[in-house]
Amino acid sequence: MTAAGFDAPGGPEVLRIEELPVPVPGAGEVLIRVAYAGVNRPDVIQRQGFYPAPPGASPILGLEIAGEVVAQGEGLEQRALGQRVCALVTGGGYAEYCVAKYAHCLPVPDEMSLAEAAALPETLFTVWHNVFERGWACEGETLLVHGGTSGIGTMAIKLANLFEMTIIVTCGSEGKCDAARVIGADHAINYKAEDFVERVKEITGGAGVNLVLDMVSGDYVARNLACLAEDGRHVTIAVLGGMKAEINMAQVMSRRLTMTGSTLRARPDTFKAAVREEIAQIVWPFVESRRLRPEMDLTFPLAEAAAAHERMQSGEHIGKIVLEM
Amino acid sequence: MTAAGFDAPGGPEVLRIEELPVPVPGAGEVLIRVAYAGVNRPDVIQRQGFYPAPPGASPILGLEIAGEVVAQGEGLEQRALGQRVCALVTGGGYAEYCVAKYAHCLPVPDEMSLAEAAALPETLFTVWHNVFERGWACEGETLLVHGGTSGIGTMAIKLANLFEMTIIVTCGSEGKCDAARVIGADHAINYKAEDFVERVKEITGGAGVNLVLDMVSGDYVARNLACLAEDGRHVTIAVLGGMKAEINMAQVMSRRLTMTGSTLRARPDTFKAAVREEIAQIVWPFVESRRLRPEMDLTFPLAEAAAAHERMQSGEHIGKIVLEM
Repeated sequence: MTAAGFDAPGGPEVLRIEELPVPVPGAGEVLIRVAYAGVNRPDVIQRQGFYPAPPGASPILGLEIAGEVVAQGEGLEQRALGQRVCALVTGGGYAEYCVAKYAHCLPVPDEMSLAEAAALPETLFTVWHNVFERGWACEGETLLVHGGTSGIGTMAIKLANLFEMTIIVTCGSEGKCDAARVIGADHAINYKAEDFVERVKEITGGAGVNLVLDMVSGDYVARNLACLAEDGRHVTIAVLGGMKAEINMAQVMSRRLTMTGSTLRARPDTFKAAVREEIAQIVWPFVESRRLRPEMDLTFPLAEAAAAHERMQSGEHIGKIVLEM
Repeated sequence: MTAAGFDAPGGPEVLRIEELPVPVPGAGEVLIRVAYAGVNRPDVIQRQGFYPAPPGASPILGLEIAGEVVAQGEGLEQRALGQRVCALVTGGGYAEYCVAKYAHCLPVPDEMSLAEAAALPETLFTVWHNVFERGWACEGETLLVHGGTSGIGTMAIKLANLFEMTIIVTCGSEGKCDAARVIGADHAINYKAEDFVERVKEITGGAGVNLVLDMVSGDYVARNLACLAEDGRHVTIAVLGGMKAEINMAQVMSRRLTMTGSTLRARPDTFKAAVREEIAQIVWPFVESRRLRPEMDLTFPLAEAAAAHERMQSGEHIGKIVLEM
């Protein structure tokens, strides 16, 4: 099969097409003929050499796919063959065929394109777990997300709208702020033109937000905490701005803030299956009724994976980039 | 009535006896003829001028008392008169009479002295809420507490024993480590002689602890986080070592740590009543069966409140200091 790989870490140009054997599904797994694969920030970081694949994962990039089940391993009572599915995978998505745990697959509704379906799993699992499970978000609350036009940001906007939260995002330009508002952000702050802490205070009438979904970390953390209301939660899912944060523990204590975070990829299969179950019950009805669709950026052929990475690194994308096999 | 007060913040010597009017219980309140009042670290900090009484609280020091109910305000269906109770109060404990919300009182069993009863509420409410409610502690887990012979530390040891947790404490001398072990600590680390992070790793076989109850904060925070197991929780209840902490957010994220904290005094009456209810249901049976008794240090007459504060500041106490009216 054809896949996109790299020999040594480096810039987008290290990505090249290679021929590899088709993987074989094990117990509880299905083989998917991939139609589209989502491109995510961790792919870029892995290509740069800073995020090695976890033990047992495919060395091929790609954390989410959509396509048709063409083979299945032992232990699956339900015959999966022929189903259109999207799946969260620990690697291997940038390829014509990919193995997935069947418990990490979701059915693609007839009305949804496989390109859209491939753009859902990674951001949906990530935002769902971190905002609603880990972050205890509930209706009526206010959420702050940086990178409002990123894959994560656009998914956060859409879920906040569906679950009746107010969402404030930050973006790096007026154009992106406009795009975020069109997608559904209640407020978008151009962080290059305005101090987001001050703007959040104004927007919330001084009360602050209940939750920050943090992808920046570093010196943003103290500023994020300043945006939080009493009993606010701060959930970190990436440290794109640096790992070290200096925080005021008296604030954490006296305002009863909670700071936590998680990564998705290294979690056990059982955990991911549990998140998948909750998504299937609570979120998937919105996918089936077309009230939840991913915000799509550009589609690149697999052979142009390097260009897809370049676009993500440029920060010019709005929503999800996908690769077509 | 006689009370211990101070005109201006300062050392223990500013405390002096004064005559004040007996307070009048309002709706839902009782007037308690105080037999004993517990001495707590926040009293010392308030006397030093760094912890002002919250709005509406008595300017008199003292956050916990035990004695007899001698009057009651409106709205109490149950006749409280004559009951022996201990109570969490927002101030006013260092006095012959003190007003308390009846919903913040607990009945003193016949077999328990009022001196012991006065030593329970502040540490019991604090440890219960922060370890079990906020920190999600459960049986089989391991807890690290600094200041193992303090009022908080000794209460944490006793609750950990009752609820089948393993508890590791740190203390500043071999003598205090011995005392902590006698009280019930599974492990006591002399932090002046050993690196507690290394010792915690050894004790837990590299796994780390599930929870840190943090009273030190400052540069202890990063070391505390290094002691935590995956999914560990860090709950801050005081910042005796400083407010500023530098932490590694990649650790928080990749090991799914949770950092939070709280202060008790400023919380709403309804919150304290809810904690009191949980304590009454779950912990008080152990008090009634004498399986939970506070670790008692010295008793001072109210007129020697300054000596009581000196003792607390010296750090020589083991367990609770109380004042006798």
